[in-house]
Amino acid sequence: MRPVSIIGIGKTPFGAFPDKSLLDLAVEAGRKCLKNGNISPAQVEAFYLGNFAGPAFVGQNHLAPYVAAAMGLEGVPATRFEAACASSGSAFFHACSAVAGGMYDVVLVAGVEKMTSQPTPRVTDILASAGELGGEVKAGATFPSLFAMIARRHMYQFGTTREHLAAVAVKNHSNGAKNPEAHMRKVITMEQALAGRMIADPLTIYDCSLVSDGAAAVLLCPAERAAEFTSKPARVLGVAQASDRLALADKEDITTFPAVRQAGQKAYQMAGMTARDIDFAELHDCFTIAEIIAMEDLGFVPRGEGGPATAAGFSALNGEKPINTSGGLKTKGHPVGATGVAQICDLVLQLRCEAGERQLSRAGIGLAQNLGGSGATCVVTILGR
Amino acid sequence: MRPVSIIGIGKTPFGAFPDKSLLDLAVEAGRKCLKNGNISPAQVEAFYLGNFAGPAFVGQNHLAPYVAAAMGLEGVPATRFEAACASSGSAFFHACSAVAGGMYDVVLVAGVEKMTSQPTPRVTDILASAGELGGEVKAGATFPSLFAMIARRHMYQFGTTREHLAAVAVKNHSNGAKNPEAHMRKVITMEQALAGRMIADPLTIYDCSLVSDGAAAVLLCPAERAAEFTSKPARVLGVAQASDRLALADKEDITTFPAVRQAGQKAYQMAGMTARDIDFAELHDCFTIAEIIAMEDLGFVPRGEGGPATAAGFSALNGEKPINTSGGLKTKGHPVGATGVAQICDLVLQLRCEAGERQLSRAGIGLAQNLGGSGATCVVTILGR
Repeated sequence: MRPVSIIGIGKTPFGAFPDKSLLDLAVEAGRKCLKNGNISPAQVEAFYLGNFAGPAFVGQNHLAPYVAAAMGLEGVPATRFEAACASSGSAFFHACSAVAGGMYDVVLVAGVEKMTSQPTPRVTDILASAGELGGEVKAGATFPSLFAMIARRHMYQFGTTREHLAAVAVKNHSNGAKNPEAHMRKVITMEQALAGRMIADPLTIYDCSLVSDGAAAVLLCPAERAAEFTSKPARVLGVAQASDRLALADKEDITTFPAVRQAGQKAYQMAGMTARDIDFAELHDCFTIAEIIAMEDLGFVPRGEGGPATAAGFSALNGEKPINTSGGLKTKGHPVGATGVAQICDLVLQLRCEAGERQLSRAGIGLAQNLGGSGATCVVTILGR
Repeated sequence: MRPVSIIGIGKTPFGAFPDKSLLDLAVEAGRKCLKNGNISPAQVEAFYLGNFAGPAFVGQNHLAPYVAAAMGLEGVPATRFEAACASSGSAFFHACSAVAGGMYDVVLVAGVEKMTSQPTPRVTDILASAGELGGEVKAGATFPSLFAMIARRHMYQFGTTREHLAAVAVKNHSNGAKNPEAHMRKVITMEQALAGRMIADPLTIYDCSLVSDGAAAVLLCPAERAAEFTSKPARVLGVAQASDRLALADKEDITTFPAVRQAGQKAYQMAGMTARDIDFAELHDCFTIAEIIAMEDLGFVPRGEGGPATAAGFSALNGEKPINTSGGLKTKGHPVGATGVAQICDLVLQLRCEAGERQLSRAGIGLAQNLGGSGATCVVTILGR
């Protein structure tokens, strides 16, 4: 199969935008991306859209042709991918596969979610539909409560502490404050993080990602054609998607996600790399505990050591392996359907040395990990220059 | 790219099944399909699921890993595709592309919808979310009313009559009565069809497809490996997906669907065929007028002649080009997310000479056309032996 490159990226800022519709956001990201890749709509051969719950959030289903037509992508195959919070990661995975397999040369992948038009309790319910309805959701579980159970178990099993969780929040707030397109640009202290309002014990408001509106897009083409469009292509070195059971109750061990391990292993294998080769990463910190577990499942640190490593600065901007230099879902924001592709955009910014105040000095190989639900879908991508 | 074959099919009956959940239906179809293809779950490398509105109909999102895990497909990439009533057609298209491109050897594609648990007015609303929310849906349009406008315009422009529409219904009822797995097995007369209760003038109850529960699945592999699994493989000769604007108001001519024409042309081109080569077809008769327009857009008859051709027996079981030998969406049933893959199953039954009472004598090349919304997505597939 052919190597694939990313030749354009485009994102809206993430935040609460009462005046922008889902369509506005998706079209804005798509147009920025086409411009960034020096591509006209007529050159795009297929459109891949990640969206989790447009029908529930804004009442509109059948979103892919709707967005495609508004961007002037007339007639091309336009498809919506839904995999909970990994929706656009999954769209990206399938688009990479199609270009690699020779189906298309130029494809546009986007992700979008418009969440803030619904009141918070309704948002929580819509998000909960990505959990297992008949069991855990019927019993009253929400995603904060599911990840709270995961965090409690991780604490019990490995000695992870509230301070470890808070260290993730403090780091991601610090990074997000340097990201002009982040939803929340606010540095916080360890004391503030620890004193946050409790959402689901042990997770406080500072352990939870944001409810945001936003969209992101990337353009793909075969690596051999990348130079036609950009002088700064990013190479897809590895990409893999894996799945697992939906319900926590059906998992053997809730402190590790087999889908993350499996997608990670496949992506490493495809890239011919190990965790050691990764310079920096965007990990799916829907909750602080999720970042800690992802560090462990991807082999950045041994099991149980994600918390202490974070507290010791391992994943800080100037650490051994910087994680979520964008601010992560925690402060950049988490418009769920957009998150997977937004992570890819953030990796590409670093690879291109366009990350501004948060630019890393060593940013040759980046990894993105996009999680759906409490681990039932995972997409891992490894990019290089 | 590699030729692709269908090596297994599996379907639930279509109907109203208060005792079966969405998961029950999907798992039943998937297991039948695996058995039909002599495949164990461990051999399946990826899972593609078409579902339109599970979150709205039954409250469960993130359906692909949920269904995959219940079928014992542990860990594989499991993705939900949503393209309105073409959801599983789109899943099939993407799965064929992945096998053709060399990503996988053995993949399972399924489609499912559980609709009858909601009251009819709610079903109508959920279906309407595939139309354009801000314009036509806000103005009160439902799918029966959109297709009624299309029918009226077709009547005005080409002289199509109520009798022509009714001829489609009479034919599909006659075929469906021969299909043991059809939702409605009831022969009707032209008089009955014309006297049907009016739903949206000129469409009566007999012009509208059914609200059904059901699931369908197919197994794909590279053609060169098909003989390992079955003595009766079906070959995917052509498959294409195309898109168009959502709103009727944005279309130049509502009596033809550009996405159908485009997907048809691409599929014909890929197969090296024309409409003349097609022996029989499953067309997306969500409303009788849709079958008439599909006949025209796919080149089976010249524009405007779909109605008279139907009335003259062109598409009957013993006609020149039999259409919807399964009974079509009209009587087989239309669990929307399952329909695209179910059409493929029905083509394969004919190709294998396993279609029982409705078996055609000449069934060498079959075409399936799966439509999303009022023409915004279309997938066309051509199968041979």
